[in-house]
Amino acid sequence: MQTLLTELLGIEHPILLAPMGNVSGGALAAAVSHAGGLGLIGGGYGDADWLAREFDVAGSAQVGVGFITWSLARQPKLLDLALRREPAAVMFSFGACSPFVEPVRAAGAKIICQVQTLAQAREVAELGVDVIVAQGTEAGGHGGGRSTFTLVPAVADAVAPIPVVAAGGIADGRGLAAARMLGAAGALIGTRFFASEEALGHPNAKRFIVASEGDTTLRTRVFDIVRDYPWPKHITGRVPINAFAARWHGREAALYADLERQRVEYQQAVENGDTDTAVAFAGEAVDLIGTVEPAQTIVERIVSQAQSLLGG
Amino acid sequence: MQTLLTELLGIEHPILLAPMGNVSGGALAAAVSHAGGLGLIGGGYGDADWLAREFDVAGSAQVGVGFITWSLARQPKLLDLALRREPAAVMFSFGACSPFVEPVRAAGAKIICQVQTLAQAREVAELGVDVIVAQGTEAGGHGGGRSTFTLVPAVADAVAPIPVVAAGGIADGRGLAAARMLGAAGALIGTRFFASEEALGHPNAKRFIVASEGDTTLRTRVFDIVRDYPWPKHITGRVPINAFAARWHGREAALYADLERQRVEYQQAVENGDTDTAVAFAGEAVDLIGTVEPAQTIVERIVSQAQSLLGG
Ligand SMILES: Cc1cc2nc3c(=O)[nH]c(=O)nc-3n(C[C@H](O)[C@H](O)[C@H](O)COP(=O)(O)O)c2cc1C
Ligand SMILES: Cc1cc2nc3c(=O)[nH]c(=O)nc-3n(C[C@H](O)[C@H](O)[C@H](O)COP(=O)(O)O)c2cc1C
Repeated sequence: MQTLLTELLGIEHPILLAPMGNVSGGALAAAVSHAGGLGLIGGGYGDADWLAREFDVAGSAQVGVGFITWSLARQPKLLDLALRREPAAVMFSFGACSPFVEPVRAAGAKIICQVQTLAQAREVAELGVDVIVAQGTEAGGHGGGRSTFTLVPAVADAVAPIPVVAAGGIADGRGLAAARMLGAAGALIGTRFFASEEALGHPNAKRFIVASEGDTTLRTRVFDIVRDYPWPKHITGRVPINAFAARWHGREAALYADLERQRVEYQQAVENGDTDTAVAFAGEAVDLIGTVEPAQTIVERIVSQAQSLLGG
Repeated sequence: MQTLLTELLGIEHPILLAPMGNVSGGALAAAVSHAGGLGLIGGGYGDADWLAREFDVAGSAQVGVGFITWSLARQPKLLDLALRREPAAVMFSFGACSPFVEPVRAAGAKIICQVQTLAQAREVAELGVDVIVAQGTEAGGHGGGRSTFTLVPAVADAVAPIPVVAAGGIADGRGLAAARMLGAAGALIGTRFFASEEALGHPNAKRFIVASEGDTTLRTRVFDIVRDYPWPKHITGRVPINAFAARWHGREAALYADLERQRVEYQQAVENGDTDTAVAFAGEAVDLIGTVEPAQTIVERIVSQAQSLLGG
């Protein structure tokens, strides 16, 4: 399946692994790249040792890296560390990426920006980025309020000829084929790859995702509050509702009031892989996920299903 | 484009006009049916005289009708009135449709149920309905929280072989083609047809829709409060934000406190076609709408664009 995206990145299939913090490590990124897509290591909130180690794990595979932009702005040195690894691409999401465009370009990597609105897409198009990811609200993890189905064609119209990649809700070949019809040159996939063998998440988290239903996911701030991450207020994290989310969502003031104790318990839950309390970010696509599999199997199935749908 | 839906309903194109209250009158429904889709008159909150008149306006065209289910339950006689007009299909949305399945079936009309969650889809599939509409949150008008992109394939998997129709965000051939890829047998389209010549809405409302952007739509209860419609709390109405929505959304208690005066002013605004205050329900698909056109032109363009995308 040749698209503007496969040509630009020199890859075989128009599939990008989302740079999921603490989930998309070097092993998963390398597996997706070996399968013909492009794996992006999840730079997350930024930990230099973690990042160096995961680049090491990826070895000689051609991978990229993604950053949470507002967090990178606080420790811009991380970008230098990443660029020294000669990534194929660097992705920015959630914040102004303008300060980072020049260094990435100078290093010869492609620049990918993920946006949540049409207005943001217009802005980053002006900066001359290489790829724009249009992320719908059904996505797992942090994001905004617009849905993939209208955001993708609206962004494609607005930023042509820059290739647009759809993110949010894509977990099988139907989703990739639909994204292509909407005008996207490919798909950025998170939740489906969280439920892969190579993902770094806790096995309980992967089981929790497989067991979850799309009807009971939610965008919430409660996990950012208990983990003490200062996200902009309009960017919330989508999760399948667990006991912690059910208890605190909509009661944020009460959570702040009990924060000290909650933090201790939360940390304990993370260590124990207790998914009643610890977060497993995932999107509405959980409906379409039935098993934990190797990333290569996932890529191959998505591509072959999309090809047969688009061919018919 | 032959699908399970076109076969079942005996229509040429897999396009249904959404039964938009006060917007989908007999003229618009007839125009969509004449163009090869199926027009559904918008029974809305239920007004027998209005309904009789709009069936008259539709004349000999084969059309259907749609009801807001919780409202119909308060005045079930309206269903008899509709069934005497021998509609091709009756659509139910927002409430338990089980009491209405038998009479519709006995009258020889097809039964269409619109759902907002996977759980609801499973329920109505048990009732043996003919068509299930999976409505995503990006839809104009009332609806729930899940997005079209994941809801459609999840519902299709759960209710096969019942044909599933996608609703929410479809305004051009890209949307219809994407819906087909996701497993839908067709599309139910509202917002795009609001901006048609035959729609009953105020010309100012149509202009407002054309001028609106998808980034600034919102699901809100404020128009239901000021219009005194007792919607279930989890079903909200999507609108492009106007001055009234900007003023009151999130300040519902204040609106209740000033309700008497606000109602008078609101009624005045409706009469004047003042879209700063009066509601124009519409979804994120407003981004994809550039002009008010005849319904037939809209149908033809959607079909031909979808055909060329699906053919390539
Ligand atoms: C577990 C998880 C962690 C994520 N972490 C990040 C992140 O650190 N940075 C980022 O830009 N996006 C992150 N995302 C969002 C993805 O970039 C992407 O938009 C999303 O996964 C696409 O939707 P999907 O989950 O339905 O495939 C995360 C998503 C998940 C599921
Ligand atoms: C102006 C307007 C009025 C609507 N009124 C109704 C209604 O009375 N009954 C109903 O079942 N759905 C109603 N809907 C929702 C539609 O059935 C449908 O789900 C929606 O329009 C599809 O999304 P779209 O607007 O993006 O095409 C309305 C939608 C709009 C835009």
